[in-house]
Amino acid sequence: MRISRFPVPRLDELPDDIRARIAQVQEKAGFVPNVFLTLAHRPDEFRAFFAYHDALMLREDGLTKGEKEMIVVATSAANDCHYCVVAHGAILRVYEKNPLIADQVAVNYRRADLTPRQRAMLDFATKVALRSQEIEEGDFEKLGAHGFTDEDAWDIGAIAAFFAMSNRLANMTSMRPNDEFYLMGRDLQKFGNAYLRRGSRPLRG
Amino acid sequence: MRISRFPVPRLDELPDDIRARIAQVQEKAGFVPNVFLTLAHRPDEFRAFFAYHDALMLREDGLTKGEKEMIVVATSAANDCHYCVVAHGAILRVYEKNPLIADQVAVNYRRADLTPRQRAMLDFATKVALRSQEIEEGDFEKLGAHGFTDEDAWDIGAIAAFFAMSNRLANMTSMRPNDEFYLMGRDLQKFGNAYLRRGSRPLRG
Amino acid sequence: MRISRFPVPRLDELPDDIRARIAQVQEKAGFVPNVFLTLAHRPDEFRAFFAYHDALMLREDGLTKGEKEMIVVATSAANDCHYCVVAHGAILRVYEKNPLIADQVAVNYRRADLTPRQRAMLDFATKVALRSQEIEEGDFEKLGAHGFTDEDAWDIGAIAAFFAMSNRLANMTSMRPNDEFYLMGRDLQKFGNAYLRRGSRPLRG
Amino acid sequence: MRISRFPVPRLDELPDDIRARIAQVQEKAGFVPNVFLTLAHRPDEFRAFFAYHDALMLREDGLTKGEKEMIVVATSAANDCHYCVVAHGAILRVYEKNPLIADQVAVNYRRADLTPRQRAMLDFATKVALRSQEIEEGDFEKLGAHGFTDEDAWDIGAIAAFFAMSNRLANMTSMRPNDEFYLMGRDLQKFGNAYLRRGSRPLRG
Amino acid sequence: MRISRFPVPRLDELPDDIRARIAQVQEKAGFVPNVFLTLAHRPDEFRAFFAYHDALMLREDGLTKGEKEMIVVATSAANDCHYCVVAHGAILRVYEKNPLIADQVAVNYRRADLTPRQRAMLDFATKVALRSQEIEEGDFEKLGAHGFTDEDAWDIGAIAAFFAMSNRLANMTSMRPNDEFYLMGRDLQKFGNAYLRRGSRPLRG
Amino acid sequence: MRISRFPVPRLDELPDDIRARIAQVQEKAGFVPNVFLTLAHRPDEFRAFFAYHDALMLREDGLTKGEKEMIVVATSAANDCHYCVVAHGAILRVYEKNPLIADQVAVNYRRADLTPRQRAMLDFATKVALRSQEIEEGDFEKLGAHGFTDEDAWDIGAIAAFFAMSNRLANMTSMRPNDEFYLMGRDLQKFGNAYLRRGSRPLRG
Repeated sequence: MRISRFPVPRLDELPDDIRARIAQVQEKAGFVPNVFLTLAHRPDEFRAFFAYHDALMLREDGLTKGEKEMIVVATSAANDCHYCVVAHGAILRVYEKNPLIADQVAVNYRRADLTPRQRAMLDFATKVALRSQEIEEGDFEKLGAHGFTDEDAWDIGAIAAFFAMSNRLANMTSMRPNDEFYLMGRDLQKFGNAYLRRGSRPLRG
Repeated sequence: MRISRFPVPRLDELPDDIRARIAQVQEKAGFVPNVFLTLAHRPDEFRAFFAYHDALMLREDGLTKGEKEMIVVATSAANDCHYCVVAHGAILRVYEKNPLIADQVAVNYRRADLTPRQRAMLDFATKVALRSQEIEEGDFEKLGAHGFTDEDAWDIGAIAAFFAMSNRLANMTSMRPNDEFYLMGRDLQKFGNAYLRRGSRPLRG
Repeated sequence: MRISRFPVPRLDELPDDIRARIAQVQEKAGFVPNVFLTLAHRPDEFRAFFAYHDALMLREDGLTKGEKEMIVVATSAANDCHYCVVAHGAILRVYEKNPLIADQVAVNYRRADLTPRQRAMLDFATKVALRSQEIEEGDFEKLGAHGFTDEDAWDIGAIAAFFAMSNRLANMTSMRPNDEFYLMGRDLQKFGNAYLRRGSRPLRG
Repeated sequence: MRISRFPVPRLDELPDDIRARIAQVQEKAGFVPNVFLTLAHRPDEFRAFFAYHDALMLREDGLTKGEKEMIVVATSAANDCHYCVVAHGAILRVYEKNPLIADQVAVNYRRADLTPRQRAMLDFATKVALRSQEIEEGDFEKLGAHGFTDEDAWDIGAIAAFFAMSNRLANMTSMRPNDEFYLMGRDLQKFGNAYLRRGSRPLRG
Repeated sequence: MRISRFPVPRLDELPDDIRARIAQVQEKAGFVPNVFLTLAHRPDEFRAFFAYHDALMLREDGLTKGEKEMIVVATSAANDCHYCVVAHGAILRVYEKNPLIADQVAVNYRRADLTPRQRAMLDFATKVALRSQEIEEGDFEKLGAHGFTDEDAWDIGAIAAFFAMSNRLANMTSMRPNDEFYLMGRDLQKFGNAYLRRGSRPLRG
Repeated sequence: MRISRFPVPRLDELPDDIRARIAQVQEKAGFVPNVFLTLAHRPDEFRAFFAYHDALMLREDGLTKGEKEMIVVATSAANDCHYCVVAHGAILRVYEKNPLIADQVAVNYRRADLTPRQRAMLDFATKVALRSQEIEEGDFEKLGAHGFTDEDAWDIGAIAAFFAMSNRLANMTSMRPNDEFYLMGRDLQKFGNAYLRRGSRPLRG
């Protein structure tokens, strides 16, 4: 199975900094997500892509890591992006310790087990993804009604915008998600306890 | 978690034939899929719905059971139907013994690991789902080029039509898929051997 | 003129129960609507289709027969379904004793001679037909403001869902409406009196 | 029933030329189509509108009067224009001496009893109506393959363009079609002979 | 560069009245806008087109000439009409003495330097242009809240409707805007003073 | 006039590297494009954004600088992005030494003065911008037929993807283009000679 319709470089062909970054993610995840190998075809673009990704996704701000991944999954589903829905769906499950949330958000976030605040966040994010030309002050007011600051709004919109790019790169390259992502974070037993402890979304009790 | 926004009858309130059907599916699946409980609110409609479902999905014809489920998943995804994508995605994984196929078909069937014949099948099915008014002889000819007969075309289109109804019922009732469906058929170890034996889609070898 | 692009069985080839059903409708209507002949190609599907149809359309509930046909015509027009708009338009004219209503609802129900309650009913029905994934509690509240119960909402949505299927079957089979339907119920003289007695919509007085 | 949401002038308030035009159409049709009364609210616009209408619709050229009305009905249906579909549907039935054709073209011209040439004509017309920015030489070549000249193409496109305006005026004014239009030209007995003589579309023989 | 894909008559071939009209516009503008030459291919349609144009655009009413051109530019942009956006964009800049306004309105009128009243005007106009079947009383009430009368509403809607036709004619004929339009009214120095005097939209002070 | 709905930092508040970059662009352009000031609100995102921009737009490859700007303008127009259409339209005019090309591409690139190769480039780019999920091998083949390599295809698609992000950031922040952009590169006199000499469209060759 090809992971990209474009050439994929061998690790030993790559510049040191890129190889180091890939080694780092492999150590953490146990495998190399295909987005790293696909984009490594263009080292300068690779560096900018991940610098941007980290600036948004690792920034400490008003959104949890899980909420950021909800934005990624909802907007990537709106763009039918195979790689991003599967890969970030896995990360969403892990961050939220919730084996159901990724599929719910991917199919129809309006039916997902979300708080009203998270729902408002995804309404804004999908509007940026699909109809950004219609964004107006009223949209920011709706966010504000759920306690989101202007800085939070920037984060939500900028993540939606970044994945608008990412989805198109993945679709254009026919980027294939690693098999590992499909199963990751789905274990009900493993997550069950922590999940129930949080109390917010009892699964079946 | 409510499984329907409408009243859900208790099993002991149901007519005998419906209770028997539910007992039968519970014995086979190990749990009662929520579609049975949701639709049991209207016994006559329940009977007609499952009679229709069985007439199409259990009919012995030119499509495999897995291919029929591909049609269900692809068209239900086109309609953003939470229940049908999750529940029939599970059944698709089981029938195909392929832990990846359901998510692939749900996100973007154009990127899924399908044969050209299956791809043509889903092109026809999604056209029936989304733009049936534009179906013309040319669409049947495209199916014919992949060996599908007119009877196969009826099956593909009728399944897409039936789930056009089913998706709307599920969306209207906010029907919730059972938690069990999310993990079903995802076990790489369990399916790996049979899967690899088929030869067509090596997972990671 | 072919009435279906698929084979149409001769009456003497049909199972007894289906032939009896067809004889019954012929006696009542004076001709055999082509949907019966087209779907008789698949007896099991025929039985389930009409069982479902009757469960919804003959059910005694909060909607009049005419209102149910309004739902059929409005949603079938949204799907550009030749058979359903023409055939059910005829039935709508007859039930409502109104020679104008079917064309009005088919072209643009927002401009039709409807009560505000009927207008709300068709807003809900067409949302189920076209964007069921966006149905939320607010949509049920709008129905409630016009006196519709939750059971009425189910009826409206389920009829829209059933004809989502029916429209796709008719479009897929190029099902042709009988010529008789076009003129049925259009006689101004015949309907004039009853129509004017209702008082609500004077035609030309 | 109001025939326009804007003021409708009394006949004796109108300029002589407009009153004369209205008298003329009344004599011919037996009633005054509401478009004349609605647009008479603005005499200068009335004059230009009907001058344009006549320049296109009465021009002797490669299209029959019936074919011009097919264009009107198909594009007006694409714009959900209540007045134009009903009024021009009536005229289409009369010109074509075919009681079925108007409803067929209005609901889905792809399923109507048309010649391949007429089908190509409506494909071009609806593209002008809905996606004129995408018209390219290839579209003219498709017309040419059916014997349409460039002048015919102008006629088809200009009629579609004129009714793009007309439909919006009618929708904006909630222009109501006269009751008389609904039944006009539907009499199977009256048209049957001439219709059958043409040979192309036997109704029930 | 062809200015139309259809034949363009020489001036000496034209009827006197049309040649006179063209001479008049040439004297005023310094060149002959291509719409005059393109439509002169059909003299009767030319006469009706410009009679209609003048009835709407030269009418003294509640809209300024600049506001009328805003409607033309916004709706022509919605239809991707090359000729109308460029030519009427030039006229809009001149009338408004504002070198920025045409591009703003063409790209996204929601982001343009408009008063709330003008914004409401363009919301109504683009709804007529794109979704006239959904126009209802609420749309007129929104206009009324900004001081627009019913006659103003007619003007706004009728201009949008007229250019719905005009855009389609231009797109169908591949009508090419004259080079002169692109630069007209863009001179910041020339307009600067008058512009600043109006006080409403300081450019860079 | 605010240039962003979010806070815009003063130059003396900025990190040195960002201030240096801004000084550099100001020296070259004579003013500071507002995108630099708007994005400087988030220094890390600013750095990644411009690193990515430069990696794509300054890369020496099979596309000219003018062609890259055509991609930016066409896709930004598809997203109704006020900032990008105006600012990059200016750059496009300058690079192509063509005062007309930017408005042509922005309104409807199908009507612009482009070579068939450039047209194919924009067909691919707008498909990535609007329907990237449908990109398939056939799209690459169409590019190949005009001499584009796979690396060129990556460039075209990646630029479309980057501006999918950029358009959404600009729309979300209501980023306002500098007044200077509107007039830049429009001078017919300055460009006129080369332009007129060519007669038709060879701009520089």
